[in-house]
Amino acid sequence: MGGRRSVSVALLGLGVVGSGVARILAQKAEGYARELGCPLELTRVLVRDPAKERDLAIDQRLLTTDPSTILDDPEVAVVIEVLGGEEPAYRYLCDALRAGKYAVTANKEVMAKHGPALLALAQERGVDVLYEASVGGGIPIIAPLKRDLLANEIISLAAIINGTTNYILTAMSRDGRELAEALADAQRLGYAEADPTNDVEGIDAAYKLAILASLAFHGEVRPEDVYREGIGSLTARDFVYARELGYEIKLLALARRIGSGPAVQVRVHPALLPVEEPLAKVDGVLNAVQVEGDLLGRTLFQGQGAGSLPTTSAVVADLLDAAHRVVSGVHQRLAWRGEAPLRIVPMGDLRTRYYLRIWVTDRPGVLAQIARVLGDAQISIASVLQKEADEDAGTAELVLMSHESQESDMQRALGEVAALPVVAGIGAFLRVEG
Amino acid sequence: MGGRRSVSVALLGLGVVGSGVARILAQKAEGYARELGCPLELTRVLVRDPAKERDLAIDQRLLTTDPSTILDDPEVAVVIEVLGGEEPAYRYLCDALRAGKYAVTANKEVMAKHGPALLALAQERGVDVLYEASVGGGIPIIAPLKRDLLANEIISLAAIINGTTNYILTAMSRDGRELAEALADAQRLGYAEADPTNDVEGIDAAYKLAILASLAFHGEVRPEDVYREGIGSLTARDFVYARELGYEIKLLALARRIGSGPAVQVRVHPALLPVEEPLAKVDGVLNAVQVEGDLLGRTLFQGQGAGSLPTTSAVVADLLDAAHRVVSGVHQRLAWRGEAPLRIVPMGDLRTRYYLRIWVTDRPGVLAQIARVLGDAQISIASVLQKEADEDAGTAELVLMSHESQESDMQRALGEVAALPVVAGIGAFLRVEG
Repeated sequence: MGGRRSVSVALLGLGVVGSGVARILAQKAEGYARELGCPLELTRVLVRDPAKERDLAIDQRLLTTDPSTILDDPEVAVVIEVLGGEEPAYRYLCDALRAGKYAVTANKEVMAKHGPALLALAQERGVDVLYEASVGGGIPIIAPLKRDLLANEIISLAAIINGTTNYILTAMSRDGRELAEALADAQRLGYAEADPTNDVEGIDAAYKLAILASLAFHGEVRPEDVYREGIGSLTARDFVYARELGYEIKLLALARRIGSGPAVQVRVHPALLPVEEPLAKVDGVLNAVQVEGDLLGRTLFQGQGAGSLPTTSAVVADLLDAAHRVVSGVHQRLAWRGEAPLRIVPMGDLRTRYYLRIWVTDRPGVLAQIARVLGDAQISIASVLQKEADEDAGTAELVLMSHESQESDMQRALGEVAALPVVAGIGAFLRVEG
Repeated sequence: MGGRRSVSVALLGLGVVGSGVARILAQKAEGYARELGCPLELTRVLVRDPAKERDLAIDQRLLTTDPSTILDDPEVAVVIEVLGGEEPAYRYLCDALRAGKYAVTANKEVMAKHGPALLALAQERGVDVLYEASVGGGIPIIAPLKRDLLANEIISLAAIINGTTNYILTAMSRDGRELAEALADAQRLGYAEADPTNDVEGIDAAYKLAILASLAFHGEVRPEDVYREGIGSLTARDFVYARELGYEIKLLALARRIGSGPAVQVRVHPALLPVEEPLAKVDGVLNAVQVEGDLLGRTLFQGQGAGSLPTTSAVVADLLDAAHRVVSGVHQRLAWRGEAPLRIVPMGDLRTRYYLRIWVTDRPGVLAQIARVLGDAQISIASVLQKEADEDAGTAELVLMSHESQESDMQRALGEVAALPVVAGIGAFLRVEG
């Protein structure tokens, strides 16, 4: 074990996370070498423009624009990919694994779309691809799912895994702000990008859920398997009404095993959560993942979802793990192979409770008409709030909570409700969890 | 890797956890064998009385009263110790490691008192001792500290790691119950033992904190290094006053690095926590550990602290890890060796805020006298609540919160305050965290 002089590491990308990793490797070199038994040596860094001004003291001779100087170099034992985006990141990761190198990645898009292929390739070559940083940077969740919860059959995952939308929803809930204002704040503070589509539409959360669900259920869940609704239609009033009813609204990523077979439900959408639920209390840019296992019950992991330092922490933990295996000559731990391919349950089969906000003409008998349509579809109403809203227009807002119903029935009834002459529009349609 | 026919496992102890492990190994044999590449075989179980009636279908021929049939059998690759208590558990663990077997233990007392010795012995023999179940059964915390947080310098650990006392304190806070009533409830529900000393006095929490702090700070923290106060002096009124001031009271286990050197502070005592702190919201028998690292910020791990199934989950995760290493012939991952021995900071050096409840004679000038004594000791008062309490006796209760002060000053001042003729007694003296 004392034979190795050092472990050679290369970085693909020197953005926020890449710079963080380079900085921490320099700062903590001594401690990591002690942990490992030999030094970690950063030997090459792929960048687009070596001449670019950087807020980082790094030996200019390490920088290269040619990926082959890394991927074809047999000395490089671990490749850290922090480029982001699908290509060329995916190609580089394949090349690295094929060349027998360990790969560490923070790339949720690549892992969501190609995780199973990369893991299979790694296993074939006797190495591994490690991706703790791809979901919830400051929350160790991939490794606990791989190791610590392995004795369990995972029943469900419920997570808040997009800090941008959680910041926005927290501002809407706490400060009564509307979506556009809260989004503008998030952009000003650097929590949201100029084009917020990936966050607001739940795409980012769906990538992360696909990664977590594949791991938890020992199968392949692709991003397109995830049913997805964004937060775009929420208004500040929905948070007020939800609170009156005892709920908080969160963009929830949910994966649940249905029955004991291979059927799973995977979905990302805004949902009402009882205020006393631990996930309802996760505010601001924090992330949290709640895992329910048949043995351990519910365990919650909460922390910083993003940011340079938490993500760096996850990348370096994976790097130390990979480097340790390089030093000790150990192959990867076998992945649990699923018994059968997973079957994704269609959204129409979902059974849950629903929150409806409906604009109606403000006259007697309206509730009766709506209740009849819902009743005909086997949907029973648990509570009703009648809100005066616009006297000039003669319209009022009706907030309904249903008992547990089937999604397909609800969707059909919703169409019929919307078509009633007394209904001016469906303001909100949200699922209730917990 | 395909060469091994099976991994032979022996259990020391067949109590609640031991039976849970035996049951789960039988139930989930197929899945675990798939994960491992070969079956796990429970080949022997040490019990005191093989004839005892058990609520468990187990082959009677596996039971033995002779530990040497396990510890001297070269076929047994992993020994699971779930006897509890210091001896003979410690001796058996030493024998197992010396014989080159992996050891899995749920024993907090042994790990707190002898963890470093066992880990050194394991390293010498090229095996490992795994102890996830010794702290917070349903919360993966040992493995994350060993692997996932390794890139970090741990700044502090703050934990609620005794479910019994947290159940009692939650009942006192929520329902206004006094300690004795809440304890009786806990005993009736099976959350507290007939002799609750270990829980109520904080001994159990101190064991667990010693284990976590040793791991987090890469050194040896012994149970006797942990400053310890139990919950015995708390009254329901303290919870009411704390709430008025915006705090919850919890039995907190705290470990903190002081400065950048080897100095650490380790203590278990009731403390006031701001109600909005995540740890303040951990109620009932739940446990939680909050870890602060220099890179990841604060991460919270929350779940079931005890119970047969969560503890079984942790034991079997460790067993699968050990068995995997047996199958693949991998030695343990090196432990981070501390730079220097840790130095335990004396409690007198603590700087924090304090909550005082003082019985005084109900007449003018009393507060001025107390304030003068505190002021002379450099302790300034942040807020005062005056409570009418006993008109017949002519005494009142004074609740004071101090600004940050030094513990040694506070202790000295407290002695002087208690000696004032106008003071009938110190009702409570609590530290404020967060």
